[in-house]
Amino acid sequence: MAKAAVLGAGGYLGGELLRLLSQHPGFTLTQVVSTSQAGRSLPEMYPNLPYPSELVALASADSVDADVAFLAQPAGEAMKVVPGLLDRGIKVVDLGPDYRLPDPAVYATTYGSPHTDVEHLAEAVYGLPELNAERIRLSRLVANPGCFPTASLLALAPLHRAGELRGPVVIDAKSGTSGAGQGFSATTHHPEAALTVHPYGTPTHRHVPEMRSALEAVGGPAPSLVFVPHLVPVVRGILCSIYPTPSEGAKVDGWADRLRAAYPSSPFVHVGGTPRLPWATGTNHCYLSVQSAGGAPVLFSVIDNLGKGGAAQALQNANLMFGWPAETGLALAGFGV
Amino acid sequence: MAKAAVLGAGGYLGGELLRLLSQHPGFTLTQVVSTSQAGRSLPEMYPNLPYPSELVALASADSVDADVAFLAQPAGEAMKVVPGLLDRGIKVVDLGPDYRLPDPAVYATTYGSPHTDVEHLAEAVYGLPELNAERIRLSRLVANPGCFPTASLLALAPLHRAGELRGPVVIDAKSGTSGAGQGFSATTHHPEAALTVHPYGTPTHRHVPEMRSALEAVGGPAPSLVFVPHLVPVVRGILCSIYPTPSEGAKVDGWADRLRAAYPSSPFVHVGGTPRLPWATGTNHCYLSVQSAGGAPVLFSVIDNLGKGGAAQALQNANLMFGWPAETGLALAGFGV
Amino acid sequence: MAKAAVLGAGGYLGGELLRLLSQHPGFTLTQVVSTSQAGRSLPEMYPNLPYPSELVALASADSVDADVAFLAQPAGEAMKVVPGLLDRGIKVVDLGPDYRLPDPAVYATTYGSPHTDVEHLAEAVYGLPELNAERIRLSRLVANPGCFPTASLLALAPLHRAGELRGPVVIDAKSGTSGAGQGFSATTHHPEAALTVHPYGTPTHRHVPEMRSALEAVGGPAPSLVFVPHLVPVVRGILCSIYPTPSEGAKVDGWADRLRAAYPSSPFVHVGGTPRLPWATGTNHCYLSVQSAGGAPVLFSVIDNLGKGGAAQALQNANLMFGWPAETGLALAGFGV
Amino acid sequence: MAKAAVLGAGGYLGGELLRLLSQHPGFTLTQVVSTSQAGRSLPEMYPNLPYPSELVALASADSVDADVAFLAQPAGEAMKVVPGLLDRGIKVVDLGPDYRLPDPAVYATTYGSPHTDVEHLAEAVYGLPELNAERIRLSRLVANPGCFPTASLLALAPLHRAGELRGPVVIDAKSGTSGAGQGFSATTHHPEAALTVHPYGTPTHRHVPEMRSALEAVGGPAPSLVFVPHLVPVVRGILCSIYPTPSEGAKVDGWADRLRAAYPSSPFVHVGGTPRLPWATGTNHCYLSVQSAGGAPVLFSVIDNLGKGGAAQALQNANLMFGWPAETGLALAGFGV
Repeated sequence: MAKAAVLGAGGYLGGELLRLLSQHPGFTLTQVVSTSQAGRSLPEMYPNLPYPSELVALASADSVDADVAFLAQPAGEAMKVVPGLLDRGIKVVDLGPDYRLPDPAVYATTYGSPHTDVEHLAEAVYGLPELNAERIRLSRLVANPGCFPTASLLALAPLHRAGELRGPVVIDAKSGTSGAGQGFSATTHHPEAALTVHPYGTPTHRHVPEMRSALEAVGGPAPSLVFVPHLVPVVRGILCSIYPTPSEGAKVDGWADRLRAAYPSSPFVHVGGTPRLPWATGTNHCYLSVQSAGGAPVLFSVIDNLGKGGAAQALQNANLMFGWPAETGLALAGFGV
Repeated sequence: MAKAAVLGAGGYLGGELLRLLSQHPGFTLTQVVSTSQAGRSLPEMYPNLPYPSELVALASADSVDADVAFLAQPAGEAMKVVPGLLDRGIKVVDLGPDYRLPDPAVYATTYGSPHTDVEHLAEAVYGLPELNAERIRLSRLVANPGCFPTASLLALAPLHRAGELRGPVVIDAKSGTSGAGQGFSATTHHPEAALTVHPYGTPTHRHVPEMRSALEAVGGPAPSLVFVPHLVPVVRGILCSIYPTPSEGAKVDGWADRLRAAYPSSPFVHVGGTPRLPWATGTNHCYLSVQSAGGAPVLFSVIDNLGKGGAAQALQNANLMFGWPAETGLALAGFGV
Repeated sequence: MAKAAVLGAGGYLGGELLRLLSQHPGFTLTQVVSTSQAGRSLPEMYPNLPYPSELVALASADSVDADVAFLAQPAGEAMKVVPGLLDRGIKVVDLGPDYRLPDPAVYATTYGSPHTDVEHLAEAVYGLPELNAERIRLSRLVANPGCFPTASLLALAPLHRAGELRGPVVIDAKSGTSGAGQGFSATTHHPEAALTVHPYGTPTHRHVPEMRSALEAVGGPAPSLVFVPHLVPVVRGILCSIYPTPSEGAKVDGWADRLRAAYPSSPFVHVGGTPRLPWATGTNHCYLSVQSAGGAPVLFSVIDNLGKGGAAQALQNANLMFGWPAETGLALAGFGV
Repeated sequence: MAKAAVLGAGGYLGGELLRLLSQHPGFTLTQVVSTSQAGRSLPEMYPNLPYPSELVALASADSVDADVAFLAQPAGEAMKVVPGLLDRGIKVVDLGPDYRLPDPAVYATTYGSPHTDVEHLAEAVYGLPELNAERIRLSRLVANPGCFPTASLLALAPLHRAGELRGPVVIDAKSGTSGAGQGFSATTHHPEAALTVHPYGTPTHRHVPEMRSALEAVGGPAPSLVFVPHLVPVVRGILCSIYPTPSEGAKVDGWADRLRAAYPSSPFVHVGGTPRLPWATGTNHCYLSVQSAGGAPVLFSVIDNLGKGGAAQALQNANLMFGWPAETGLALAGFGV
């Protein structure tokens, strides 16, 4: 068993990591760090998880000693601890944004402060296993993608790589409120969230540069992206409704087959009819569908923002980093209802 | 007091008509027709409404005798009774689709059977009062718009009229489940509806020809429309997220002001920041917002599908047909929460 | 038109007061006070309400000058301003708890600090109009009941007055999350509230002494009350499921008729079949039902916590204080859906 | 691997059985029966489950040949096929009500038709493993409890066995809508279910005789039960709020410890603070809490109606029947959010 540590254990992504780790045959959770809940035991923090009361949240990562560390922290936090973790021989899967954007200037513009660990940024691998499995296997530092990029890229990357797209690509995303995290706000206060659909992120959302750079990595200059996320009154799950502009000569009728062919051996990406969010809940699965509306193509992509869009994908990445099958500990089926 | 009859009183639009009529100072409800609930009294059908038990649902429209009839019936039903109602001197506001499409051939293609009252179709006025108030005032037969067209057209018609649009215009609509009506189905069965966002209506939705013909009426050939409605787990309300392609030379920065200028005296159309669905619940209000995403314009339009998208707008039309102020009986403010 | 001021205008009860006042024919809103939103105009605070931008929230009640003041503030705030308001000849309807408990010692125990306006506490009238209409008409200071006491007392008071009850009376209450107010908390954070039912208020809830004192006022020593409120994932509405222990000789079969007889002329209290929460939404209505389970009686009581449980009842009280019909400005019908 | 068949595979319980079986190391699903979906393959029925398209729903149980059959069918169906299944040496776990009530006269009264398999009714074991593990291990026919009885009995049985209870015991149950099954109805139509709390089951619910007989089996004559279930707008999960009347001399302060002592080695029953429904979602866990309200005890019990209240408990029973640890294939942790 490899030893795993979770930093940022008190947030929703941290909690989902702990949930999935409790069912993973290869990892043993040995340490957790939570600045907000330091000193509390895991049974106090998560009565729903089968951890012993001896596991108590640490206040800092200084004493972390494990084979792998999962980082589920706000922007700017990972880059403070990653150099030390790597120096101590600890593999890192970072669920935050610090190592997703290869260009530090784009990071600075997007997140409002300079990147302070450019050295390791250069070696970080973008952790979308369906695109980058080989590089992930060899990496010690994986940047787990954002939830919206995961859902969007699994639909768009194969089409962009094949030259089937030009801009604009409209991505109208609907996200459950857990995607907004544990921090309180009016838009996630139940009386104000439960009866509405809340568009946000205009004029620009931090996930757009991430999508652009990932598309450029697979197929050269990216089409223009018009991305508007909306909070919908569900807790878990993302549906991206994607309206691409096909390039001249694009063979739209073949897009569904092209997507299937792009993920021939993936146990997690499925192409079929209109997907439902519960199918993905708690899992690492992604459900894609290619349809048409008014003569134009529309793609639907469904994931669990905390699953394939976060903690489950982090475990998929870690599985590859440890040389295990991608689906180790992730053979979970989602819900019918 | 003018006498009002409601046909299709047992459905959600019928129920909302009855609710609004109970608060209207100009109309007295004198007859209701419901094939499915014939013989039941209104207090039995609607314990929430202040009607006397003497008001009992009729099985047919044959004996309807009123100053105005509101028809809230499925496609194909209105055209069976409208000729008779008009012959008896009864004004008609039809909340169904029978008289919305001026071209009977488009009707036949869209609804799968020929139009059987072409004579009156020719005189029917499309009942979007913000566009057609003068014609509505003079009409005896008004075709109340569909819910999605109402929300979309209030945002798009002024821009199309000004030549600011070319295609495609992507309309990603989110609707509460009451928009799907009272008929049971898997997509509106609570266990299957509550935790998901359900896109439907591909490859084409019946509201698209209606939007096209209404746009053509105000500004000539309509841009191509890519319209995808989604059921979201709220009961009432529509948010249309609209991604237009501006024409060459369009002045996108002036769109918000252009929308304000288009409805200078309307008590019901508001242009401002990001709208919330509850603001419109139970009312005739529409909230518009112009924003940008990734450098492209995005418009948001919010209504209550049963209010401005149905029963409240029907009363607004009737108010005009009787020479009353548009807001008579509709001075209702929506909810903060 | 009488001039009305609202103190605590920024909260949910304040917002609902403003919404209802905008539709009221007897009151004109002339001033609002909000410590948290002082300086903001009403259109900024409530884009859903038809108020002019000249109405700007004041920081304090010092300059309030109106015919009636509605106070929607946390415990302890009203007693600071009520003496001054009354001195200036302003009638007061207090939606908070400061004047609900006639015994200042009970207040101190319940709310954790002594009552500082015992003088006016002695003259305050408990504002449940179905029980106290005559005294309310003559009062200048009315204590609007809490939401749970309103729902419970309308079911229980007539039975207790008739000697039909002994203890214990179990009240299992289900409340929408707006009842918890605008303050953020984990239990009202959408991701944590939307998928659960959350019992709270054990071992004791502040509304229990209020129910006890109100029952004692109508029928002598109150039966023991076992009251457990639960947050359910709706926004508005309360259902109290009440399991009384009938006294020896109680005629349970006559309870429904007894409740009907208790409110013979009320336009707001209805006794019938199983009620639905939307029937009451946005209104001053209360729906009661008497049924049996396992041979024992069970009563159901439905109100809108912000309506009859708050702002609408406050207007009903004010109507009486101004000598108007109770239903003035409150002739609103709730929703079918 | 033991071969498993599922009868009633098209319902929610059937679907949850298939989901859990797909993750179970001891069972291989070899046959499914569904009268409503006969001829459809499992990937068509359940795109969320990893079954091969060769698995096609059979129309009848006649050709079922397996080591164990799980029956998830309406009342009256199981007793038609159980004799044949047992004759062919197939163990049976029946998730329906046919074999839960030991007295056939009570069955006839409760379900409205006589029991037609009294012979096997006599040998059936009530499948609440925390009470009956030894008998379940030796049985070939286990009657899986209803969802409400499971939640209620885990809280009440140890207290009743110890003589701590007398009547009445009020059980106010809140259930997600999946508990009402796949059949459409107004009370589960999303527009009518999403904004309300719906009490039902008065004057009596079929689960009451089941609770009574199970209590009698552990502790003699049962106290009177006042049971009222409510549909709440969540999909999965039950919260039972239980208000017992303690017997003379009952040691209420010791109830929490007594419950802990009753399930010393159970991996599934937990006694602690206020539980949340998501903790149990998709799992076989039950969370109990003992609190007090107004000086009286109140117990809370949370399960997933489709999990411990249905399919997961059925697998727990089957595990015992095959001599495996109870938690085989059920080591699933519920959700934080």
